[in-house]
Amino acid sequence: MSDTVVVGLDVGGTSTRAAAVTLAGQRLGSGRAGGGNPTSHGAERAATELRTALREALAGVDPARVAAGTIGLAGAARLLADPDGRAAFDRAWRDAGLRCPYAVHGDALVAYASGTPAPDGTVLIAGTGAIAAQVHDLRLDRVADGHGWLLGDAGSGFWLGREAVRRLLADLDSARPPGALTTAVLAELMGSARIAPRARDTVDATIQAVTRRPPVELARLAPLVVTAALDGEPVATTLIAEAAAHLAESVDRIRPAGARTPVVLGGGLLTGDTPLAAAVRTEVGRRWPDAPLRSAGDGAAAAAWLAARELPELTDPAALHARLFPTP
Amino acid sequence: MSDTVVVGLDVGGTSTRAAAVTLAGQRLGSGRAGGGNPTSHGAERAATELRTALREALAGVDPARVAAGTIGLAGAARLLADPDGRAAFDRAWRDAGLRCPYAVHGDALVAYASGTPAPDGTVLIAGTGAIAAQVHDLRLDRVADGHGWLLGDAGSGFWLGREAVRRLLADLDSARPPGALTTAVLAELMGSARIAPRARDTVDATIQAVTRRPPVELARLAPLVVTAALDGEPVATTLIAEAAAHLAESVDRIRPAGARTPVVLGGGLLTGDTPLAAAVRTEVGRRWPDAPLRSAGDGAAAAAWLAARELPELTDPAALHARLFPTP
Repeated sequence: MSDTVVVGLDVGGTSTRAAAVTLAGQRLGSGRAGGGNPTSHGAERAATELRTALREALAGVDPARVAAGTIGLAGAARLLADPDGRAAFDRAWRDAGLRCPYAVHGDALVAYASGTPAPDGTVLIAGTGAIAAQVHDLRLDRVADGHGWLLGDAGSGFWLGREAVRRLLADLDSARPPGALTTAVLAELMGSARIAPRARDTVDATIQAVTRRPPVELARLAPLVVTAALDGEPVATTLIAEAAAHLAESVDRIRPAGARTPVVLGGGLLTGDTPLAAAVRTEVGRRWPDAPLRSAGDGAAAAAWLAARELPELTDPAALHARLFPTP
Repeated sequence: MSDTVVVGLDVGGTSTRAAAVTLAGQRLGSGRAGGGNPTSHGAERAATELRTALREALAGVDPARVAAGTIGLAGAARLLADPDGRAAFDRAWRDAGLRCPYAVHGDALVAYASGTPAPDGTVLIAGTGAIAAQVHDLRLDRVADGHGWLLGDAGSGFWLGREAVRRLLADLDSARPPGALTTAVLAELMGSARIAPRARDTVDATIQAVTRRPPVELARLAPLVVTAALDGEPVATTLIAEAAAHLAESVDRIRPAGARTPVVLGGGLLTGDTPLAAAVRTEVGRRWPDAPLRSAGDGAAAAAWLAARELPELTDPAALHARLFPTP
């Protein structure tokens, strides 16, 4: 059994990661390449990045040993509906020497599986955007938010960035001296925190600096909020609390009251010991006091684990999960 | 003195209105033409619409009698900074036979002057966007919001429309049966209020229906909120209350506590007896109990009144204002 290898791919907008592991939980190789999302990069480019990551992970591994594979990516349903995208992925798979079939899952399911082997639970992701999903029998079930920056993504990095700019504009309108966070936002947007003699000129310049770029780039201001919150800055602390309330409200739309299944927190703003993760843990813990709270981990390893689960020879998926994701 | 005529123009995005009045308050003529904002329509087209409205208002009036004129438009500062725009307006003025000078003011000042002759006070406008301004000596002083849909316009028609869609998406996420307002929003966006067997398909289709158009067009859903609020629909009532709180907060940024000067309410959502106007009157009345609350009226007449004020022969501006804007 330990001869059998499974492969996982975690395909994101900025990087693609691959993992090759044995059913005994031994990691044989890891690979990394550029963003491989076919929606944003095109099918051909995505296939190239996949192949690069796969070949790196499989260096020194006989590809005939690979019995199953899983690709996790955002917009998985779109890829499956697009024959060109699917064909490009098939080619990348074959070019890496793989002959076994592979499954495609949404990145939310992979993030969930990186935090827990439990078949049922909830995953909450906050990065540039924000989405929550119920998982049932290790399949995505109902989804909340993920509606994009114009209509949703409440509590996301975009949301934090936009709210930080709105607080800056409110300071300028009110002729209040900006605080530490709004000063940092002004400096980041304008290259200087200087306010013009007519504050309205700085208002106009700030709006122009934001609207010159795609709206979603407001998310790049989120780290300023996180940093300021770590310093106890009051506006940043308020924004983090509001974001956490929005995220918990999204979970509330889909997670039954009193549920005791795990809640996995993923995405750049919730993975690890961030202020937003702490605030979300408090909010979620208040509403579902019996929910085990987990942090998302290595997505490529989680994708490999999802692949292994499909093999009849894997008798104890939880034990393999524990080996792949040891508790620190 | 009653021989002297003044001319006012209220230039908007969808229509341009002109008024010719005597210093005694007699209305000699009115004109109307298409949208004449040089920023959105180009200077040439704007000049044509101005000329059309002016000529109509001056039919039967000897243009040599016109001693002063005022043009009110959004983005007045931009026009004054743009030599081409200014030249086009000069030409329209001359083509209408006018030889007197004219002043250009922001539409917010004109809206203010259409509600009160008091030199100092506050104007709050909510239509597609939202803006508040302090008026000092009949000049715009400090401004709050007007930051555009991405970063501001809190409580505007855009805001109401976006929030109505967000409530619809929350209903769909939660598998709640949509209420009267969110059903109306779904029907307006999709041509039918039918929800797909997988509610997420309706979520995706709703988001696509919104993102196919420019974001600002979310404002066209605002009338649905207003209509539902008139019927006492609970979600619409909540959104109107939230919008009113946002608008009052914008006023709060610039209006001194305890001020007793008038507050003029303008824009499509606040002019007349609308649910949002009623809610704003309550909010503003709570914060500034001694503020006279006024509704904006005929912008072209207000522009003409602002022009008349510049003439030394006008001895009683308040009396002229009372004649142009009789209390109902």
